[in-house]
Amino acid sequence: MSTVYTRPLARLVEQLQRLPGVGPKTAQRLALHILKRPETEVRALAQALVEAKQQVGFCSVCFHLSAEPVCDICRAPNREGAALCVVADSRDVIALEKTREFRGRYHVLGGLISPMDGLGPEQLNIQALVQRVGQSDDIKEVILAINPSVEGETTTLYVGQLLKPFTRVTRIAFGLPMGGDLEYADEVTLARALEGRRELD
Amino acid sequence: MSTVYTRPLARLVEQLQRLPGVGPKTAQRLALHILKRPETEVRALAQALVEAKQQVGFCSVCFHLSAEPVCDICRAPNREGAALCVVADSRDVIALEKTREFRGRYHVLGGLISPMDGLGPEQLNIQALVQRVGQSDDIKEVILAINPSVEGETTTLYVGQLLKPFTRVTRIAFGLPMGGDLEYADEVTLARALEGRRELD
Repeated sequence: MSTVYTRPLARLVEQLQRLPGVGPKTAQRLALHILKRPETEVRALAQALVEAKQQVGFCSVCFHLSAEPVCDICRAPNREGAALCVVADSRDVIALEKTREFRGRYHVLGGLISPMDGLGPEQLNIQALVQRVGQSDDIKEVILAINPSVEGETTTLYVGQLLKPFTRVTRIAFGLPMGGDLEYADEVTLARALEGRRELD
Repeated sequence: MSTVYTRPLARLVEQLQRLPGVGPKTAQRLALHILKRPETEVRALAQALVEAKQQVGFCSVCFHLSAEPVCDICRAPNREGAALCVVADSRDVIALEKTREFRGRYHVLGGLISPMDGLGPEQLNIQALVQRVGQSDDIKEVILAINPSVEGETTTLYVGQLLKPFTRVTRIAFGLPMGGDLEYADEVTLARALEGRRELD
């Protein structure tokens, strides 16, 4: 392999292959593309990589990815303080923000309870969540938006029990996805959809 | 979009999206992955990008990508000087090298003749090829390994005519790919396969 590429190109291909979903063919395609771009553009990418890594940490309030000590969402004055949405990961915050449906604030757990992976409640931002909810007079509802996996169910139950003394706790609905087809839905999804049925308005 | 990501993360996603085949979703996935990696690893990727761009140029003999003035293949003493393989692009050299079938040297044209894109023979490394072949006593065969596209055919004919006075000129075979199926092959491929038929040994 390394005899096929000139040394700096081999190193670049090797580095690119460490990225998720990037195999040898994609790494080669990306590397040859990069060699054809102007140096300013390549430097901009390199700089964006290092700066993102250096500058982005976690919000001290909600633990969402943030370049500031407190993130944009926590600082935004027009956010509803009454609703707090609890998610496993920052990527869930990003997904929910893209819907533009939720106007409250978030709390990122930083993972799910998973004894198999050595992840207990103390490794997650759960204590900070309980404190945050317990000390707040504004929070009227905590919405648990956590995947319906084994670890997700465990975490939902655990966090739910801890928060119920302080406020109303809900979780997002599970059921047939929009555009989905009853015929092709798996049994668990269908069972959840039945279980979560509501009165027609 | 930029309100969803904290600023340095937004810049990284934007930069990653410039890469070929990387859309918004992949860019986000790569960026969030990068934020989770140790800083040394991110710096290594950034450095590999800049160094590859800075150090990799073209071989002065064959125009293959090279960090040295003359590339590894041109300098290798165990390469057969009798066979010269002409390709459009460095990625074709890499593909051929991976077969380990060809032991001669290469010449990279740097593209194909394409008047529609303003690419004439003078924009390609054709003059250098003719000089190289004309001045060499070693080269006994030039193999044109160029894609069978309209531009490829034009380039093959043009280069072939220029080189025929000096040496034997051949081109690679076109036909049914290995593992291919007659039933599903397109007509042009099938016609080429018929046309290129050979005596059974």
